[in-house]
Amino acid sequence: MAHALELHPDRLFPPDPTIRRIARELHGAIKGLPILSPHGHTDPSWFAMDVPFGNATDLLLVPDHYVFRMLYSQGVPLETLGIGGGDADPREAWRAFAHHYHLFRGTPSRMWLDWVFAETFGLKIRLDAQTADRYFDTITAALATDAFRPRALFDRYGIEVIATTESPLDPLDHHRAIRAANADGSWKGRVLTAYRPDAVVDPEFERFQDNLARLSDISGEDCFRWEGYLAAHRSRRAYFAEMGATSTDHGHPTAATANLDKAEAAILFDKIVAGDFEPADAELFRAQMLTEMAKMSLDDGLVMQIHPGSFRNHNQQLFERLGRDKGADIPTRTDYVHALKPLLDRLGNDARLSIILFTLDESAYARELAPLAGHYPCLRLGPAWWFHDSPEGMRRFRRATTETAGFYNTVGFNDDTRAFLSIPARHDVARRIDCGYLAELVAEHRLEDWEAAELAQDLTYGLAKKAYRL
Amino acid sequence: MAHALELHPDRLFPPDPTIRRIARELHGAIKGLPILSPHGHTDPSWFAMDVPFGNATDLLLVPDHYVFRMLYSQGVPLETLGIGGGDADPREAWRAFAHHYHLFRGTPSRMWLDWVFAETFGLKIRLDAQTADRYFDTITAALATDAFRPRALFDRYGIEVIATTESPLDPLDHHRAIRAANADGSWKGRVLTAYRPDAVVDPEFERFQDNLARLSDISGEDCFRWEGYLAAHRSRRAYFAEMGATSTDHGHPTAATANLDKAEAAILFDKIVAGDFEPADAELFRAQMLTEMAKMSLDDGLVMQIHPGSFRNHNQQLFERLGRDKGADIPTRTDYVHALKPLLDRLGNDARLSIILFTLDESAYARELAPLAGHYPCLRLGPAWWFHDSPEGMRRFRRATTETAGFYNTVGFNDDTRAFLSIPARHDVARRIDCGYLAELVAEHRLEDWEAAELAQDLTYGLAKKAYRL
Amino acid sequence: MAHALELHPDRLFPPDPTIRRIARELHGAIKGLPILSPHGHTDPSWFAMDVPFGNATDLLLVPDHYVFRMLYSQGVPLETLGIGGGDADPREAWRAFAHHYHLFRGTPSRMWLDWVFAETFGLKIRLDAQTADRYFDTITAALATDAFRPRALFDRYGIEVIATTESPLDPLDHHRAIRAANADGSWKGRVLTAYRPDAVVDPEFERFQDNLARLSDISGEDCFRWEGYLAAHRSRRAYFAEMGATSTDHGHPTAATANLDKAEAAILFDKIVAGDFEPADAELFRAQMLTEMAKMSLDDGLVMQIHPGSFRNHNQQLFERLGRDKGADIPTRTDYVHALKPLLDRLGNDARLSIILFTLDESAYARELAPLAGHYPCLRLGPAWWFHDSPEGMRRFRRATTETAGFYNTVGFNDDTRAFLSIPARHDVARRIDCGYLAELVAEHRLEDWEAAELAQDLTYGLAKKAYRL
Repeated sequence: MAHALELHPDRLFPPDPTIRRIARELHGAIKGLPILSPHGHTDPSWFAMDVPFGNATDLLLVPDHYVFRMLYSQGVPLETLGIGGGDADPREAWRAFAHHYHLFRGTPSRMWLDWVFAETFGLKIRLDAQTADRYFDTITAALATDAFRPRALFDRYGIEVIATTESPLDPLDHHRAIRAANADGSWKGRVLTAYRPDAVVDPEFERFQDNLARLSDISGEDCFRWEGYLAAHRSRRAYFAEMGATSTDHGHPTAATANLDKAEAAILFDKIVAGDFEPADAELFRAQMLTEMAKMSLDDGLVMQIHPGSFRNHNQQLFERLGRDKGADIPTRTDYVHALKPLLDRLGNDARLSIILFTLDESAYARELAPLAGHYPCLRLGPAWWFHDSPEGMRRFRRATTETAGFYNTVGFNDDTRAFLSIPARHDVARRIDCGYLAELVAEHRLEDWEAAELAQDLTYGLAKKAYRL
Repeated sequence: MAHALELHPDRLFPPDPTIRRIARELHGAIKGLPILSPHGHTDPSWFAMDVPFGNATDLLLVPDHYVFRMLYSQGVPLETLGIGGGDADPREAWRAFAHHYHLFRGTPSRMWLDWVFAETFGLKIRLDAQTADRYFDTITAALATDAFRPRALFDRYGIEVIATTESPLDPLDHHRAIRAANADGSWKGRVLTAYRPDAVVDPEFERFQDNLARLSDISGEDCFRWEGYLAAHRSRRAYFAEMGATSTDHGHPTAATANLDKAEAAILFDKIVAGDFEPADAELFRAQMLTEMAKMSLDDGLVMQIHPGSFRNHNQQLFERLGRDKGADIPTRTDYVHALKPLLDRLGNDARLSIILFTLDESAYARELAPLAGHYPCLRLGPAWWFHDSPEGMRRFRRATTETAGFYNTVGFNDDTRAFLSIPARHDVARRIDCGYLAELVAEHRLEDWEAAELAQDLTYGLAKKAYRL
Repeated sequence: MAHALELHPDRLFPPDPTIRRIARELHGAIKGLPILSPHGHTDPSWFAMDVPFGNATDLLLVPDHYVFRMLYSQGVPLETLGIGGGDADPREAWRAFAHHYHLFRGTPSRMWLDWVFAETFGLKIRLDAQTADRYFDTITAALATDAFRPRALFDRYGIEVIATTESPLDPLDHHRAIRAANADGSWKGRVLTAYRPDAVVDPEFERFQDNLARLSDISGEDCFRWEGYLAAHRSRRAYFAEMGATSTDHGHPTAATANLDKAEAAILFDKIVAGDFEPADAELFRAQMLTEMAKMSLDDGLVMQIHPGSFRNHNQQLFERLGRDKGADIPTRTDYVHALKPLLDRLGNDARLSIILFTLDESAYARELAPLAGHYPCLRLGPAWWFHDSPEGMRRFRRATTETAGFYNTVGFNDDTRAFLSIPARHDVARRIDCGYLAELVAEHRLEDWEAAELAQDLTYGLAKKAYRL
């Protein structure tokens, strides 16, 4: 017998009756607010071309590294799931997933997926080996209808604005198409890009030299000379801003920054483009580029996001066989206090600059990040990120940062996902956890109820709007 | 007036009435399950020879470094307690312990000891200076009776299987005797060994050279040559497996692994056996040996346990005076992401391999261990270990690991103790904490009640059975 | 309409009714105990001269780096607040503060300030832009009255003893004046000094050479020779002890200690005083000085406090413009296990020595500090410190340390503040959090109610009295 799937209206609220009552009330007032998604990885072609999504497996399983990494950890070969090419049958892949769905008990993926199943597809029984086919058929059939095309879901989900992330090498054709649709009134959805220059900033990125050549082409600058390279960034940033970007994003292995003078930077750059460098040179170059990007932000007003601390492609064999983004990025210990100092020495007191810091190392929340953000005018704290964008992770974030940085040095929630359908589910989790946390503060008389109500609005909407200049 | 000693049936369940009700129900269904103790340090001679245990002090105080380290920290000389030789009067030692028993308030030792006092010895008043003698007499008298001999307690405690840990240099005579008793039907208790080769793997271990000579003798191989040394490991592992071992155990200062080729490894080994090495060589050798052990595990199927991160014998004066294991091992910061990579590069994608990782550095739970175990097919997470096998420690473990690694990449509970009488108490704590955690998830509607019931069984019994191949 | 300001009698107690009832009862029995403030930074001239405090801004805003760092982080220039000289109008500064008071929601500063407003000044409406002037006038007017002079507040606050911190270069005139007042019966308040030698121990301290010259003058020793330098410390410590000091305090960048022999130490010292040293020499010298201080403590009985791990004056521009203590000290990752070993190798087993360890790196609580303090007879754990002396910070401290170190290796609460008026508020928070924590243990049947009642007394009063030898 299949188990019922029902999303409980009190889910994620602390069970204490006093706190739950307050949380419910706070949540009631904000649950209908539009979604701001200022950082994520959805594909702009979805919204530009509005082509139906295909089958359940291709939409919900193949692109979601949270999901397939867990299956892989329990011995399910990725090829079985249709990851990394191969010709796995989507229905068989779905069955394998369904058979192992119990692995996700206690994980946020389970909550997000159940939300998608129940709220988006109206499923009323739980996913397991028995219901696998019914799920696959129901979802795949729905996806073929107009109501489940990307723009329709965007509208139905109440998304006010969403940001994607693109490389400077991207011509942003899809974004241009969306803006054209906005202009001609055929679709109102606001989709912004964000400037993510890792591929042309990280000397250790695959095909870095080729990327510089392409950047030269696309920008018309000589990107093998320091001045030309910087000019190319400036012009691409301007183009991105024209296409709606309000932010840049930097996914570096560490948070290292540098403060070289012009001559030193040029010499380092020559070494880098000559391909004649050590890992320490690459690290220094990335570090210097964060400071260069901050300087450009002062000019063009783009908000800067730093996402450090992931050891990318940790699984060497898998990387060689299937390439990047296969669920093998692992967080590492991350220092901020020493790493950010060079940039902060240069620009840290300029309140016009806005840098949003993220971490995969929770030990830095209370020790480094909250004290930094609670002092420097240019710093804000991004929300619990990646492996930590979960109920317990979000609670740890609030408990560890609020007392030193307050709420107003944080920037609301980021869903940071390419799993488009899960976006409302992720915001739902964040809103419920924040309301539960505020309710605890009220129940312990650390906050008045009217303050909590204001904060619930700010954490859900106001802070993201302001921090990302949306 | 003496205070009553009563174990409350709801102990360790969260106080919220909703959660407590669910926890009580989950616990009711699993509290009677047999004990699996796949990792620990009880003495196999107890079960081989079944000699009565002696007096209260020798059984409960002298071998328990959790207990005597706390007394020592408050100025009680170890010699007073009969630790490290000397001729302390056991009754006087017990009185000193009783006099200081308030020091253990809020610690797991207090819970474990109270359980032993109440459940094993039927004591109904609390231990303090006034009741010290009554305790000493009651316990010592009971230990002289048949009902308190090792095998009787083993049976009474409902232990299905227990593993001890032995060095490759151990002839395993006691294990052979126990297996003989199993075979002739005189005792049914299952007692397994585990292969713990630190004494012949760590070049910095006391008398390492002598240990290699003894390993040569016992294995018939020339352990001063790389090939002979590896062959000796292979043959001892095979012998251990014959004596019931299903696992190996590695207590290294760090989690470092290496992936040297055969020639490099042989050169390093020559350096090590010549005694002409630096600390970095010793570290590299230990690192390489983890990879060698993993390769052997692929062949013989022994599960591998890595217990890194303890700074052994931190107290130099005490070590010189009284030797190792005197409560002076201190946890250190431990990296896994870089440390394990060489081994994982070589073998990490082989689902036949099973490596159970432990830590004394809780900051690695959510940052490194859960992401690693939630990806690599060969990795599992051992439970909260040593200083962290306590109510708060276990809660932190579940809260920090479940969302990324799930429950099914964990392996149930380890009591990891030489304090035999406390084993049921430790499992009791683990079961209660796990049921309380599951109850919280149910009360927050993050898990269905029937799922929690399944998980309670798995966390108590199924996962350990499977992970340790029992 | 202004919002009411009322301190709820149940504030900070956990909301669960069972726990709250127990917490309330525990708190009822200890809330009236006198305040022991064994570590802090109030100005002894206040109590020596008893001059009225001035206006609201000068008393509550300008000296409180918790407050002005938050305002600065949100773009309020420090000069606007009257920090770092300048001629800001105190009323205008107060208005700026009031206008931004919502920034402190969820922070301990908010709780401390609200306590001061409500309990000390009898204000019944909340601070905001509308009530700013009323606040400024009420507070400033009150401060002009006798009831709000330093000694009157000291008496009213029920302070039994308070320690300040002074440099060896301080002649302690104010302390001598206070002792004279104690002797002639004109005031009974006990105000102790503490020996804080950073300015003459840290070669990287501003004007270190000048400081040595001044130490020579004040001590009559030649402080540019190792023996003379040590003799000067001994004589200043003796003088400090005469002026009531029971402790020394050491604010080092790391917890590093060293164990050089006499000749090595003298050579290092020569290098230091010659000004011809590298950062590593400075670090080694500070490290050696901790061991020297510990040796002196064995002789003169002063309790030693180590406060490591702050990256001082992280904001270079601000430091150059406005000097130290401008809210730009940032915690860093801090190792204790390796750092303390040299000192512990030398003196760690001497129960006459008492060293109180603090940290800004909470990851060390369970991993390093509790295991160290739960073993070495000379070590005790200071309370949650600085950024962590907050409700969540204090809870993390208890949860992470109690299970391994117990309660009796901790030393009660430190307010560690120069914000004199907030002292009772800070102790109020600590008492409530400790009672709430004890109540949780009772409600989970991990502690008996009568034990919790004893512990509440000890945590509030007994442990500080004993640990600081007050």
